[in-house]
This record gives sequence, C-alpha cells and structure tokens, in this order.
Amino acid sequence: MIASELRQDPATKEWVVIAPERSQRPQLAKRPRPDLHTFYSSQCPFCPGNESLTPSEVLRIGREAAAWQVRVVPNKFPALQPNTPPVSKNCFYRNAAGCGYHEVIIESPAHNLELADMPEEHIARILRAYRQRQTLMLEKDDVRSVVIFRNYGEHAGTSLLHPHSQLLATSIVPAYVQWKQEVAERHFEETGRNLYSDICEAEKWAGVRLIEEDREFTAFVPYAASVPYEMWIVPTALSPTFALASDDALADLAGALRRCLLRLRHCCGDVDYNYVIHSCAKGEEAENYYLWHLQIIPRLTEPAGFELGSHMYINPMRPEDCAQQLREAAITIAEPVGLSYELSA
Amino acid sequence: MIASELRQDPATKEWVVIAPERSQRPQLAKRPRPDLHTFYSSQCPFCPGNESLTPSEVLRIGREAAAWQVRVVPNKFPALQPNTPPVSKNCFYRNAAGCGYHEVIIESPAHNLELADMPEEHIARILRAYRQRQTLMLEKDDVRSVVIFRNYGEHAGTSLLHPHSQLLATSIVPAYVQWKQEVAERHFEETGRNLYSDICEAEKWAGVRLIEEDREFTAFVPYAASVPYEMWIVPTALSPTFALASDDALADLAGALRRCLLRLRHCCGDVDYNYVIHSCAKGEEAENYYLWHLQIIPRLTEPAGFELGSHMYINPMRPEDCAQQLREAAITIAEPVGLSYELSA
Repeated sequence: MIASELRQDPATKEWVVIAPERSQRPQLAKRPRPDLHTFYSSQCPFCPGNESLTPSEVLRIGREAAAWQVRVVPNKFPALQPNTPPVSKNCFYRNAAGCGYHEVIIESPAHNLELADMPEEHIARILRAYRQRQTLMLEKDDVRSVVIFRNYGEHAGTSLLHPHSQLLATSIVPAYVQWKQEVAERHFEETGRNLYSDICEAEKWAGVRLIEEDREFTAFVPYAASVPYEMWIVPTALSPTFALASDDALADLAGALRRCLLRLRHCCGDVDYNYVIHSCAKGEEAENYYLWHLQIIPRLTEPAGFELGSHMYINPMRPEDCAQQLREAAITIAEPVGLSYELSA
Repeated sequence: MIASELRQDPATKEWVVIAPERSQRPQLAKRPRPDLHTFYSSQCPFCPGNESLTPSEVLRIGREAAAWQVRVVPNKFPALQPNTPPVSKNCFYRNAAGCGYHEVIIESPAHNLELADMPEEHIARILRAYRQRQTLMLEKDDVRSVVIFRNYGEHAGTSLLHPHSQLLATSIVPAYVQWKQEVAERHFEETGRNLYSDICEAEKWAGVRLIEEDREFTAFVPYAASVPYEMWIVPTALSPTFALASDDALADLAGALRRCLLRLRHCCGDVDYNYVIHSCAKGEEAENYYLWHLQIIPRLTEPAGFELGSHMYINPMRPEDCAQQLREAAITIAEPVGLSYELSA
C-alpha cells in the first residue's frame, strides 16, 4: 500500500494531501470527442453570420469581416463592466463598484473545433489576441489585474460549445493574486532568485514530474498538484506578465499548449478542463520575482467539504504517476479534416 | 438593470463579484427528494447488519450493538492515517508524512434519511458525536487542526447515499485556516472585539441578510457570499472551537441547522450541498479572537477558470435576495413517516 503524503505548494504555501489509496479515483470515462462535423450552428452567437448576436467586436483577426479567424467581443452577460455606478458604502463591510472588463475571445469560426485540434499557427494567433487585449487593459486607469482563462465543458463552467476563452480585468487585485506575488517576492528577497525559475530548475533536475521542455518553456505536473493531471507551462524568459511575452514565445507556447491538451485527451479522453494564465498585478511588471505561467486544471474530481473548508486538496493520484502517463502519451497531431473554414495564415 | 458590485469577505479578505445580471443563474431543477422508503440497502456498508464492512467502530451511540443510533468508524479509504511512515525529504520542496485521522460519522441506521428529515433530538446526538470525536482528536500529540464536514449529493463530492459526515484531523494547520485566524486576530488587535461577533452584530443591525436568530445562534447569508444560498450559523457564546460547545448550544444548533437545510430545500429543491464546521487550530482554544461557525455551501454553480485562477467568486445572486427567500420559506417540519428505525432518545 502507498501511504499518503503532505506536500506544500511553494507558490501558494497551501498543503495538498497526496492520497493514492483513496477510493475516489477519477472516473476516466474516456468520453469520445463530440462530432467534429457540426461546424456551424444557426443558434450559436459565436458562429459566422450571427455576429449581430454579440456586442460590438473590439478586435478582429482575419482579412475581412466575412472571413474572420478570431474575434474578441465584450461578454454579453458581464460579471464586471466599465463605468459601473458607485455603490453605497457600508459602515462595517468593504465594497466597491463592480467596475472592470469582461471579454470573450471567440477562437475560431468553426463551431465545434476544440483548441487542441486547431493548427499550431492558429493557436498562436489566439494567444496574440490574448496578449493584445491584456496589453490594452493594463493601459486603463481602472484596471489593476487581468486574468485570462478558458472553460472547456459543463463541469468546467461553460454551457457554450463554440471554442472561446475569456478575459476579466478587475479594478482590485484579487487577494489570492496578491498572496502569490507576496510569496514569490519573499522567495526573491531570501534567495535573490525567481521562484518560478527555481521551480522549473527543480523539476528539470528531478525529471519525474516533467512532461516536456524546450528552449522557451517547461511543462510539468506540479509537485503539490491539487487535482489529477494538473499541468503548468512556465516560460524560460523572465517576464512577470503574459502581456510582455514575445512573438517567438507565443509561437512556442502554442505548440506546448496544444501538445499538453492532446496528452490530457490521450490519458483521460475528452475531459472537461480550465486553463488560467496567471500574471502579476499592474505596477509589478518591472519586478523580476514573479513569472507568468499557464495552469491547466482538469475537472475529473469534485472538491468536497474538506477542500471547501480548509482549501487543502486531496489528490487521489500521485503527480509522478500522472506525469509519466502524460509524458509517454502517444500524441498524434492530425490536421483537422473536412474543415469548412480556412484557419491557416 | 442591476449593476455588479465587489464585496470583500471580512473573514478571508477575498473579494467576491455580486453579478445579478449574469446569465449563469443556477438551474433550480427542484429535484424531488429520493424515495424515503428505501430504509435499507444490503450493499450499503453503513446499513445495520453490515457493520463488518467498515473498520472497527470508535464510537457508538445507542443502547445496544444491534440498535445503534449513531456510529463513528475510521474511513475505509482514508486521506490521512496515524503512524504513516515518514517520507523522504526533498531538497527544494516541503513535505511531510500523511499523518492524521479520517473518520466517518454514520448519522443514522436508516439508509435514505436526509439530515433535515431527522428529529431535532437525533441531530443533536450527531452533533454531540462530532464534539466527542473532535475533543478526543485535539488531545492527540500529532493533531493540530480538525475539520468536520458533510457532503450531500454527487456534486458535493460523495457517492454514498447513507447519511454520514466526516472528520479530518491533520498534523499541520491548513494555510487557509491559519490565514482566517490571522485575519480575526488582527481585527481583535485593532478593535478589541471578536470579528465573528461583530459580523453577527452587523447582520442583526442590517437585517436584510438575516435568516433567523435566537439566544444561542445567528443564521444569515454572508455579505460576500461566494455562491447562491450560502449560509452561516454563528454561535453567540464566545468559543474558538466547536469542541467547547455546550449541550444546550448543540441542542439549539440542531434546530437551527435543520431549519436552514429545510429552508434551502424549500428554495432550491433537493440540492447538493456541503457544510463545514470551522474551528481554530489547536493551541488557540484559549484565545477570544476566533469563533467557530458552521458554513452551508449549496452546490448550484460550477466554479470556472476565473474562480480557480483568482479565488475571486462570481455570485450571480444577491445575498439579500437569497436571504429573503430563505427567511420567508414556509418550512414544514413533518415527523418522518414509516421509519423502520427508532431514532428518538
């Protein structure tokens, strides 16, 4: 029998229970990919021809209106909006107007094309759209933090099938983002080194949690992964915010991200997941203690009362076992067939 | 249209987006209660007659072995166990042996009786079992924190229907538990008052989020509720840990808890939920800055990438609206009919 182990995430100081003996191993249903031939849905607000169903677009990539490749629009049901009226202050509690920006990055004209199945050049185009919007957001006076994320599947919190990601720019810095920066800053003060670079070095040295590495990125299962098959993709170039990533880095990230998602599908089938691009808050861009990174969070397990009450996760799979499966996954990168939309450059 | 608002949880300093215009309102399916006549399942390890399917019991309430009313047993698939062998240390990361205790409180011999449908005296009996086990755990040298929780329904992380709760005692203090204590301690240093008592006072004064109050407890929807219909039940008597609650307090809590769960069912149907009893870590019992409390977390919404990446929740329902519905719920406390097990004292 394999005994449980407590591991501390060096980036958050949260403890995780690695409990391989737990019965609650994820049910790997190996759900097949949905039918890839449904390229168009007349009901879908993100499909070509239905552009009037979304708020006015703020960015379009593609030669002409009728043949866009990526579109960015404000979220029709925004969590935050610019120019939100001030709220009445409360004598005891702290509050603020729900000011901010909530955008949707429509990743492709094709209705039913998962990110992992898109050509690498197209994924790079989406990443450049992220960067362009984040850069613009960081120029606004009322923005202090930008989180870019993708929800895939109902268990990951989305009801829309059409491939899309989201950007949320907030006027306050979320407490967790602030906390992660403080942890990294303390590491820098104590060691003179960047925490995330140190993590990458530790992973390359250990090897057992490594998924792949190249000049620009290291992909691995984190030491204190909170869920099975969690993955981090961390850049080599020191840059506290994704907005500062170079074109070369994004081209490389597109490949790494695509391969990581294909590895996940190889191991788990068409599983729901989220990914998040973590950047430092505005005003910290010049600092060298933080490093932006992309975190992939498969939604195979359900957090229960203990996790909600203690924020201490119980991961029923050893990160080393997940990493080995992901590393050894025989990923086949097939060009999507029968595409009715041209996604190449 | 109702604008979004940012609210800060005074107990965690986390911000929450209250976004009533979001389309992702929970689907209140009003799922009916499962068939209450399935009192017994021959497959269920928690049903009477199947006692040999669980590890040896550590506590039994009830006159004789064949007619127990509440049983506590070690979890058969524990996340943590006593006497776990030490793990090899790593030069970069921090880890520890997965030492701890993971127990299951089998709340009733009846297979399919939800907590809210049990007689109040029986719920008090369950709460006394919690207290007895927590007290015993806190006496152990290798225990520093005890979390008691209940998972109801698959979306809340349980697969077993038979009514049960769990206790997890850890050798380390979870970072989040530590953080909440620090926030409360700072409030005490700044004001000389208990943070949780102040929250109760603010809620009684405001009234709009109040669900019910009596001499012993205040039940309300928190100001910065992270999910729809979240509820807190906070005691009046200053006590940092649940283990120190009096018999009278537990008898009263049984009623408040039962009514809150019935209110939730009235508003949302048979919804999945977790509840957690938050206590301070060991060694802080003598302090008066913290106050144990019970948090009910309905699982109507799915956290998505933004929540996972920022720990900032988007709540699509105003706490005041949820509180009004819960407060005005016409709860009928019917005695369970056709019970094949005698649960009275």
